[in-house]
Amino acid sequence: MKNFFTYNWQVRQEWFEWCKHIKEEELTKSRVGGVGSILETLFHIVEVEYSWIRAIQRKEDIVVTFKEYDTLDKIMSLSKRYEEEITEFLNGNLFEMKNEHVYIPWDKNTYIVDDILHHLVAHEIHHIGQLSVWARELGKRPVPANFIGRNIRK
Amino acid sequence: MKNFFTYNWQVRQEWFEWCKHIKEEELTKSRVGGVGSILETLFHIVEVEYSWIRAIQRKEDIVVTFKEYDTLDKIMSLSKRYEEEITEFLNGNLFEMKNEHVYIPWDKNTYIVDDILHHLVAHEIHHIGQLSVWARELGKRPVPANFIGRNIRK
Repeated sequence: MKNFFTYNWQVRQEWFEWCKHIKEEELTKSRVGGVGSILETLFHIVEVEYSWIRAIQRKEDIVVTFKEYDTLDKIMSLSKRYEEEITEFLNGNLFEMKNEHVYIPWDKNTYIVDDILHHLVAHEIHHIGQLSVWARELGKRPVPANFIGRNIRK
Repeated sequence: MKNFFTYNWQVRQEWFEWCKHIKEEELTKSRVGGVGSILETLFHIVEVEYSWIRAIQRKEDIVVTFKEYDTLDKIMSLSKRYEEEITEFLNGNLFEMKNEHVYIPWDKNTYIVDDILHHLVAHEIHHIGQLSVWARELGKRPVPANFIGRNIRK
């Protein structure tokens, strides 16, 4: 499971780098499908992952909005901070807690930790798939999505 | 890992059902991003998964082409057949072999079984993300991609 998180963070970082070569108006332009714009989709991926991990940790949800993180630099900085915190958490006693039930306040429902981790992995890959179509529509080559061929395995 | 395969097959099946309500010309229309058309992307997901699983099994690759499976019915039937075979394989001694190295003839490279399984999971979710954008561009609601809320866990 940790390998999937590492993969997602690596791909996410490559999209951030990709964005540096795209005009800001294209990054913030509202598009069909996904979460509004390219930047808003990237923000959404970062924000959703952190919220669910906080819920697993039984910590209060920290609500951040795209309005506060509406530039590439701000999203990159938020992502870096969250990734460091989540890495530390994933390196802890994750295996022992994977069958625990966790209450999700914004969903008013209870889920198993392992299912939440699966959910987060699939959530990010799904949205990255959307970005890849938008990239082609912009006439640009998307970030390669292959899991294989990356240096994921520790 | 098996849960991710179950998730992908469930979502794939829902996309097949979704396609039944879409005009054939829309399903076969060439689109930007992804693998050509909606149908070709679904065929590609099915075909790629099977090829890699055959490679893990040290079985010869069976090459099938979209030309032979260019209708929804044919792809659904191929997917069902492959899914049954792959399910049987995944229910075998997968855990024991996950660190084995496998030679991939079309790639002329060797990969670890566990990495190939990760690759397949990410591959399908990525392409489904692309379909979701095309669905919105068609003015249609895509199949929900949530992992959570499905009856995945055995």
